[in-house]
Amino acid sequence: MRNINEHTITEAVLQGMAGCDSPRLKEVMGALVRHLHDFAREVKLTESEWEAGIRFLTATGQKCDDKRQEFILLSDTLGLSTLTVAQNHPVSAQATEATVFGPFYVEGAPQVPQGADISGGAAGEPLFVRATVRGPAGEVVPGATVNVWQADADGLYDVQRTGLDAAQGRAVLRTDAQGQLAFRGVLPVPYPIPTDGPVGDMLRALGRHPWRPAHVHFMIEAPGYQTLITHVFRGGDPYLDSDAVYGVRSSLIGDFRSRADGSHALDFDFVLECS
Amino acid sequence: MRNINEHTITEAVLQGMAGCDSPRLKEVMGALVRHLHDFAREVKLTESEWEAGIRFLTATGQKCDDKRQEFILLSDTLGLSTLTVAQNHPVSAQATEATVFGPFYVEGAPQVPQGADISGGAAGEPLFVRATVRGPAGEVVPGATVNVWQADADGLYDVQRTGLDAAQGRAVLRTDAQGQLAFRGVLPVPYPIPTDGPVGDMLRALGRHPWRPAHVHFMIEAPGYQTLITHVFRGGDPYLDSDAVYGVRSSLIGDFRSRADGSHALDFDFVLECS
Repeated sequence: MRNINEHTITEAVLQGMAGCDSPRLKEVMGALVRHLHDFAREVKLTESEWEAGIRFLTATGQKCDDKRQEFILLSDTLGLSTLTVAQNHPVSAQATEATVFGPFYVEGAPQVPQGADISGGAAGEPLFVRATVRGPAGEVVPGATVNVWQADADGLYDVQRTGLDAAQGRAVLRTDAQGQLAFRGVLPVPYPIPTDGPVGDMLRALGRHPWRPAHVHFMIEAPGYQTLITHVFRGGDPYLDSDAVYGVRSSLIGDFRSRADGSHALDFDFVLECS
Repeated sequence: MRNINEHTITEAVLQGMAGCDSPRLKEVMGALVRHLHDFAREVKLTESEWEAGIRFLTATGQKCDDKRQEFILLSDTLGLSTLTVAQNHPVSAQATEATVFGPFYVEGAPQVPQGADISGGAAGEPLFVRATVRGPAGEVVPGATVNVWQADADGLYDVQRTGLDAAQGRAVLRTDAQGQLAFRGVLPVPYPIPTDGPVGDMLRALGRHPWRPAHVHFMIEAPGYQTLITHVFRGGDPYLDSDAVYGVRSSLIGDFRSRADGSHALDFDFVLECS
């Protein structure tokens, strides 16, 4: 294993994994090395480009903290997140489609009762959401744990506001005996993903916009069913066809009805797959 | 651009780069996206594997600081560094071969005169190095800037020793009018790359050892010549055929002669390429 060149390196690295006792890890890492090397050979990556890549990845990791996940943002903007979600959740005739998780989920959001105002004082026009959670045979799913998270009228999630320690637009609810859910949030608006880090630099360099169409995130967990991670998008949004993270599904576009008092209402039914 | 699936995502991301005004960036990022997506489809990456990947990359970035470069270590151990160096420096009949840069170079090392002891008090048997720097026609290269860095008898670089702020085994010299260079360092020993971070976890999971054969790093810069980044390896080392970062070239193995007084001597000639 001396005098390795750009052609023999791939086999050398693969042979080094012979002692790996996890067949799946060996498969995944072997494929990663083959594709990584094929990429570098195909473009004949230069040493200064390699250095730029090292700097970019380092800065991406260092931008992450307990409220910021720049690597998820990178995966989202490069389409890897949508690819992964799509190939693990084939579209079914009955079940609600999944979409990207995104970088703004926070574990341990406050548990609130039915009908609660989850806005926590966030700016925005009132939005009243009613939803039913069902299984594939139409049965209602009582006691499902539902995480909801959303940005405010400025397009910011609570974790993006420096100095804000309380949850805003983020809560955990449980479906009632009829599989129903109700809460008051704020009307979502389109927003740019954070552009003050390496991913923002990348989007600018590529000539891409950072905008996402308005949406509310849901993660629904119930025993006996597959966890559903999805969004409900707001119909008519100008970015539905150019989502910076490729997450829009037609079936996830909801009807956010405007009411005479300036508030809005959304009714949406979720259908889970059996696990 | 709605309802994107694991097959249509690649073209969607590539089309998003249409507005990029750098043809080379578009080429490199386009190829990166294609190979990244091909990898994820080939292994049918699961969501929990995607999460593990996000966690791994985040931890790798967060392990980096002004003295630690975990992403270079990752590139080195996955063979990307050797691939990149090899394809940018085809082996020539006359010039000294290049090898990996590694994670332990530090800018601004102390400038020292000919013959200086660069060990800075590092533990190790004395090593007296004499080298000549030449051009491809055999002409000597006076005034070349030569960065030297090496680990001590414990296999540690100065930057790996907490609380040590002075340089040890690290200096900048200039070749004299005859293109010559002389300094006193310590005899290099084989050492494991740092295994207390994500790259160490990866090597353990893959059943790989972290060892590198003993070597001294050189970076040689002179006007009119290509910068040479290389090592001189110690002949007879047990890891010459299983270097954890795939950097060994036969032509870079030096003769570290043991002397009666317990010291060692290395003579090595470097030949630069014209720029």
